[in-house]
This record gives sequence, C-alpha cells and structure tokens, in this order.
Amino acid sequence: MSFPVASARPSGEDTLIARYFKPLASDAGAFGLVDDAAILKAPGEDVVVTTDAIVEGVHFLAHDPPDTIARKALRVNLSDLAAKGATPAGFVLTLALRSADDAWLTPFARALGEDATKFGCPLLGGDTVSTPGPLMVSITAFGRVPEGRMVRRGGAKPGDRVVVTGTIGDAALGLDILKGGPVAKTLADDLAGKEILVARYRIPQPRNALAKAVRDHASAAMDVSDGLAGDLAKLCAASGVSAAIDTASVPLSATGRKLLASGAISFEAIVSGGDDYEILCAIPEDCYDAFAQEAKRAGVAVTTIGTVIAGTAEPRFLDAQGRELTLGHLSFSHF
Amino acid sequence: MSFPVASARPSGEDTLIARYFKPLASDAGAFGLVDDAAILKAPGEDVVVTTDAIVEGVHFLAHDPPDTIARKALRVNLSDLAAKGATPAGFVLTLALRSADDAWLTPFARALGEDATKFGCPLLGGDTVSTPGPLMVSITAFGRVPEGRMVRRGGAKPGDRVVVTGTIGDAALGLDILKGGPVAKTLADDLAGKEILVARYRIPQPRNALAKAVRDHASAAMDVSDGLAGDLAKLCAASGVSAAIDTASVPLSATGRKLLASGAISFEAIVSGGDDYEILCAIPEDCYDAFAQEAKRAGVAVTTIGTVIAGTAEPRFLDAQGRELTLGHLSFSHF
Repeated sequence: MSFPVASARPSGEDTLIARYFKPLASDAGAFGLVDDAAILKAPGEDVVVTTDAIVEGVHFLAHDPPDTIARKALRVNLSDLAAKGATPAGFVLTLALRSADDAWLTPFARALGEDATKFGCPLLGGDTVSTPGPLMVSITAFGRVPEGRMVRRGGAKPGDRVVVTGTIGDAALGLDILKGGPVAKTLADDLAGKEILVARYRIPQPRNALAKAVRDHASAAMDVSDGLAGDLAKLCAASGVSAAIDTASVPLSATGRKLLASGAISFEAIVSGGDDYEILCAIPEDCYDAFAQEAKRAGVAVTTIGTVIAGTAEPRFLDAQGRELTLGHLSFSHF
Repeated sequence: MSFPVASARPSGEDTLIARYFKPLASDAGAFGLVDDAAILKAPGEDVVVTTDAIVEGVHFLAHDPPDTIARKALRVNLSDLAAKGATPAGFVLTLALRSADDAWLTPFARALGEDATKFGCPLLGGDTVSTPGPLMVSITAFGRVPEGRMVRRGGAKPGDRVVVTGTIGDAALGLDILKGGPVAKTLADDLAGKEILVARYRIPQPRNALAKAVRDHASAAMDVSDGLAGDLAKLCAASGVSAAIDTASVPLSATGRKLLASGAISFEAIVSGGDDYEILCAIPEDCYDAFAQEAKRAGVAVTTIGTVIAGTAEPRFLDAQGRELTLGHLSFSHF
C-alpha cells in the first residue's frame, strides 16, 4: 500500500496524502496511514468485500465537480454493501491522477471525508498513482454481516414480490441532460427538474439505511447499477427463476413520468439506463409487511413492481393490458 | 462489484469475465463471481488489507508482456502482505482496459491464475472498466494474521539489526536496460545478465515464504518498493529511531556488483531506484539466529546491512572507512 505518510523528507506524494487523506483515516485499523497495510476486525462476523471503479469520460464527465466524483466513487460501493445487507466497515482508495491539483483535491477529499462519516465507512488506506490518462477512482469497500447472512443474488423463489427502492431511470435522464440529449431539450426551462435529474446521476443515494431490513427479509438482492431490466435478468438467472413485471408499477420521479408521458423518452431508456443505485430485491409475501414497515422507519420508499415466477425465461415487462414489452438492450456493458 | 457473471443475455463484459476470470475464483467466498460481493472469513484473526495499482507507462512499459504485468500487479501486493507477516487470503482486481483483446487477456489471466495458486491468494471479485487512457491494474489484497500480530513499521529499537532479503537495485537496473540507458550499453553482450535484471523489474519475487519468520521475530518491517534508502528512512521515522548502514553489506547481484565496480552506475542508483519488493526489517539481536535459520529453511537469503541506533537523524550509509555517503534523492515519488 502506498498511502503511508513518511515524515522523513516527505515527497510530493507523501505531502498530498498527509494533507488530504490522513484526516479521513479515523479508524484505528488505518494506523493513521503510517503503515503499509490496514487491519480490519470482524470478530464472529463475515467481511463483505466489493470493488467498483469510476473512470472520467465513462462513469463521470471530465467537468463534473470533484466533490460529486468523490461521493459517487464511494457511494457506488456503499450501494453494493446495502444490497448485500452489510453494515459499512471501511474502504481503501486508489486514485490515478494526472497531477496533484490542490483546487481539485481539496473539495474531493472534503466530500469523501463527509461521506465516510455520514455512512460510517472510514478510509483505511490506499494508493495514489500518476497517470497520463483519464482520472480514475477505484474503491474497495468492506462491510460486516453476521456469519453466513450476506444476501445473495440467487435466492429468489416463485411467489416472492419483486421490490425496488426509490425511483428508476432518473440518473440516465440526468446523464442525457449533461450530454445535451433530447431530455435537455424537452425540459428546456424546467431548471429544477433538470437539476434533480443531474444530481441523481452525479450523486447516487445508496440505501444503506435499508441494509438490515434487506438482510432480515429479502430472499435475494442486488443493487441496480446497469439498468433495472438487465439487473433483474441477472438476479433471476442467479436464482433460477423468472419474473413478471407490471410496467406501470415501476416507480418514476415526477419528471420521469412527465418525460415518458410526453414521448420524449421510451420506457426502455428508463429501465436500461443504469446508474440508479437503488436496491432490487425479492421479498417473500409473508415478510413483506415487516419489510415495508422497516423501510418506512428507515425513510426509504419501496415499491412492489411484480412477482417472481417459476421458469428460466427472461423477466417479462407487461403493460396494463398484459402485453409484453420487447426490450432491445437490457443494460450497459463496457465491452 | 461489477464482476458477476450474468447468464441471461451475457454482455461483452460478462463474457470476458466468464472466460478469463471465473476460472480464477476458486475460493468459496468468491461465489464463482456470480454475486455482487465476496465474503472473507477470518475467525479469530485480523484481516490485513493492502492496495497497490500499476499503470502503463509508470509502473510497467506499454510493451511489457501481459503475463508479467499480471504477475507484477499481484506480487507488489503480496510483497506488502509478506512484510506485514500476513498469510495471503485473496484479492480483488480492477482492470481498466482500452479494449477486450483476447491476445492480451489470455496470457494475462493465465499468469494471474498461476500466481494466485502459487501464493495461495485466490481471486474474490473485481471490476472491469473501459478507459481511453493507459492500461491500469489495481489490486486490493487480503491477508490473515493472528489477532494483533501484524508487523508494523514503527517498532524498531536501537540495537536491532537492519536486515534485507534478496538483492537490492536489480529491478532499477532492469528498467534502465528496457529504457536503453547506460546499463544496457555497459552490459552490451551480456545477454544473460541483462535478462536477469529485466526479469527482476518485470516480475518481483515477493518473500511470502518469510512471512511467519518476520511475524515471529521482526520488531518492524516493510517492503522495499520505492528504494532502500527512502524506505529505510520511512521505517526509522515511524519507529522514532535512526540507523547506520554499512554500504558494503548491501546485498547486490553479481551483475549489480560488476556494474557498480565498473562505475557504470552509482550506489545511489542502487538504493534509490525502487521496485525491489524485498523485505526490510529490524530484528532484535537475540532473535536473529532463529530468524536466520527460518529464512534458510524458507529458501530466502537474508543479509544484515546495519544497526538501528537511537536518534531521529536520517539513516546514514557508511563506507568501509566510516565516511558517510550523501544521497540526493531517496526514492521515487509520483508527484
């Protein structure tokens, strides 16, 4: 690990780490970033490990504000922990930078520290490297669950409800706005509407408040990062089941509904866009009331969008007349 | 985590992961890469976490063979675990690629799998992202130690021996050869000598076989990655001590000795070049015999290069006449 802060003849890299990242290393296991490795303790528990990287020009835009880049990098990982029913325990950061730019690093580190505190997920260590290429932030995050209790993808059973948190599609619409696409044109003067969608793209809202409810009640769960349709297909495939989704039940924001009604965007764009960072889970019918109550206490909206059914066919999206929607592409792929 | 293999309408990314990386996910906690997170178990032990990234053009060269890039990416992390006295437990991989090139990925994944097996450090998960920039391989590796037994940087005491494994400087000389520098010219026809040095640059030899001996006997340890002089200064600073190093004792390879004797390279280049991935540790005198015996059994050469002394001055490098060498720069810094 290259994060250790050297006090003897500190290099530019040492100074960078001492100034920006040492203040974030509040956990005892981080040793104040003066060692080569960190310690993670999880007595009697399982350590849940997840890793996600975000790349300039791919997962965020070159001119996105540094504070939102920091939050997105951490939150896409926190979202995975939430969906697995895990309590955040800490993270390590790899930062590939073209230069050590104070004007960029100051808000980046401040926002990262704020989110680390907010979500109880302290910095444990990391590595800073120089790159001639695009900025990249790679985070490996750790959570804790009671032994054997991580919520898997592959546990959904026929009859379970298919449930999602929050609203779907807003982040993809926000990206379209930033790229000057049709959504930007349709919303023209609706500055507030555009701002909300852009914020949904830049700053995911991971549902960590729901982690315990997911752990206690879901038969299967994952976070929606590559598009609801594709991610549901993955959950079903892992569980060896299919699903019937009531298209009209998919929760949309007010602006999302408006855009869909106006014909500016397709339902396919909503469910294949990605970057939602909501939780998709299967909840057995007899657990649903308890789950919904806990979600309400946690302040997280949950919506039943369909039912798990037997079979191995791809999940079907049905309209009010029971007609099936044909989806061209289900989700985003890097290659 | 974006490594899960989807079986429903697999994307290019899913196919890439299924083909190249699923075979490496032998640990039960990896769930065959079909889930969003991995589980790491360490009952009654501490989990040691370290992370290091390597970037094309910075840590390896654009035309380095893919198998050596894979090995280097994992081994620089294994080296940290070894120096901390930890037993490898697994790793997660983030791979930023310009394209999914079979001719590159096949040897990369094969070599990564071979090293994962060789060092008992299975792939637990990861993320593949596309990048328009340089190739980057970021690995977070995990080890296990008995509770509270991770070997720290900050435990060296006056009177302890300063010990290094293997030989120092070879990797920096190998890099000089690849760059067509003075070493390449001096060694001109010594093909075998050049090959050995280049291999030391491309494929570190982490000293994991020595981890237990380090844990049982070292008062402080770290791996030498940024140059012996700078890394020793860091270890001393963390321990609140100084050191006196006998320059003639620093272990060099036969080719390294030849190059130094010929004047083709300076001693400073040897001890500030970096990429050694040897262990630097402080061993109390009364532990040394047991340590040396265990090192011999492990097949790892260890050499005493000096003594920890009281004080907070920078470690001194002394020649046979007791004259101090002045070192300009101590180590490599990214910024």
